[in-house]
Amino acid sequence: MKRLGLIAGEGELPLILATEANSKGISIISIAFTEKAAKSLKPLSKAVYQYGIGEAGKVLRCLKNEGVKDVTMVGKIEKRLLFKNPKLDLKAIKILSRLKNKNDDTIMLAIAEELTKEGIKVLDQKLFLKKLFPSKGYLTKNIPDGRERKDMGYGFKIAKEIAGLDIGQTVVVKDNTILAVETIEGTDEAIKRGCELCKAGAVVVKVSKPKQDNRFDIPTIGIKTIETIINGSGSALAIEAEKTMLVDRDAVIKLAEENGVSITAV
Amino acid sequence: MKRLGLIAGEGELPLILATEANSKGISIISIAFTEKAAKSLKPLSKAVYQYGIGEAGKVLRCLKNEGVKDVTMVGKIEKRLLFKNPKLDLKAIKILSRLKNKNDDTIMLAIAEELTKEGIKVLDQKLFLKKLFPSKGYLTKNIPDGRERKDMGYGFKIAKEIAGLDIGQTVVVKDNTILAVETIEGTDEAIKRGCELCKAGAVVVKVSKPKQDNRFDIPTIGIKTIETIINGSGSALAIEAEKTMLVDRDAVIKLAEENGVSITAV
Repeated sequence: MKRLGLIAGEGELPLILATEANSKGISIISIAFTEKAAKSLKPLSKAVYQYGIGEAGKVLRCLKNEGVKDVTMVGKIEKRLLFKNPKLDLKAIKILSRLKNKNDDTIMLAIAEELTKEGIKVLDQKLFLKKLFPSKGYLTKNIPDGRERKDMGYGFKIAKEIAGLDIGQTVVVKDNTILAVETIEGTDEAIKRGCELCKAGAVVVKVSKPKQDNRFDIPTIGIKTIETIINGSGSALAIEAEKTMLVDRDAVIKLAEENGVSITAV
Repeated sequence: MKRLGLIAGEGELPLILATEANSKGISIISIAFTEKAAKSLKPLSKAVYQYGIGEAGKVLRCLKNEGVKDVTMVGKIEKRLLFKNPKLDLKAIKILSRLKNKNDDTIMLAIAEELTKEGIKVLDQKLFLKKLFPSKGYLTKNIPDGRERKDMGYGFKIAKEIAGLDIGQTVVVKDNTILAVETIEGTDEAIKRGCELCKAGAVVVKVSKPKQDNRFDIPTIGIKTIETIINGSGSALAIEAEKTMLVDRDAVIKLAEENGVSITAV
């Protein structure tokens, strides 16, 4: 592979991926959906294009013109945009109108299918981001107590069920009681809500889907996740080992340890 | 049965039940948890006692002293109280400390067990409230359109899964996407949140648990539910036929019809 198309949302993941690919001698053609993303990707890319989230036709034409054969899709995209302000071009309307629902998977699979039709392959995110997936174990020096470990076990089981139903991948739990189930509002909102429903000590559990497609939307945590838990007086975070990504690992662990929040890869 | 103990939360259900029992010549000994409930039950009861939500010992002693052999538990109780301000007496602490979690069922079953130990039987709510359970069909003149019916089908399936996991019994759905899953925050908060995540047209689905215990916590809708849906620009409500209660039926249907919200018992 000589060049890689990077369909990029916000955050650090696209930058990490572009850096990793560059280090392997692969040049990056970036498609950014915000000015911020476009700007940050510029130094790492052979070319950067910026389009609206609904401009599927332009994205496809651009990748074709650039002769891109492999793409990867990473970074955070405000999914609520699809419900609230969808400025869609003809291609996007065609894609969306064929969908049976607007779940993440359905949308992403449809996009992957469109790319495949154009001879473009969507790559597994893990290919360039392997080092972000923690192995089983305690990631912080402070470790969860007995109650928190029990809540992690129960939360893991429930989160897997919820993820299997394609509702969301995060739950907030305390004393074996589910306080919040994530839907399309996103992880941070779910954590905030769950923490508000108990005085302190909420446990957050984030897992991958039972049939996780590693080409897109791998569950990811970072500084923001820990900040939200701290602000809500939550006490522990559990993520699924080898299947969830931890971005900005050193800073995340430092922040968690300083605030008495434990992080466990289970 | 000559006398019935009524362990009463807020709302109209205790009043409806007391009226129904009185009409069958059964006198009511009421245990109310708020002043409001105590006051409204006074004209319908032979005696009314008011205790705090955590005064389990006092409640048990009172029922015994009154020679009550059958009780029923109805009415809304703020479950968040158990997490936020639990003023518990010794008996309540003993009961709660034995629980594996603080889910509705677990708490209610423990209370029922304590009552049984004292020779007091907890009755099926349907015994006195049968007329509140709608049969299958459209309850409003306006009926759901094709999209809404599809969302009801999908929402019903997911709500049953969620209820089976003992998380909650209500989901909000649009275009086959789950927008909110109820946990302990309650139905109204879940409806509000789900409606906020889409412009308009949210469909609310409320079901019973797969193993619903009719002695307590039967899912109930009323005026407040419809008001919340209207305020959120929601468009349709589906409840499970024969297994969910509809309180204040005429007023609920009138309000829904006037605001273009359909109600279906499925």
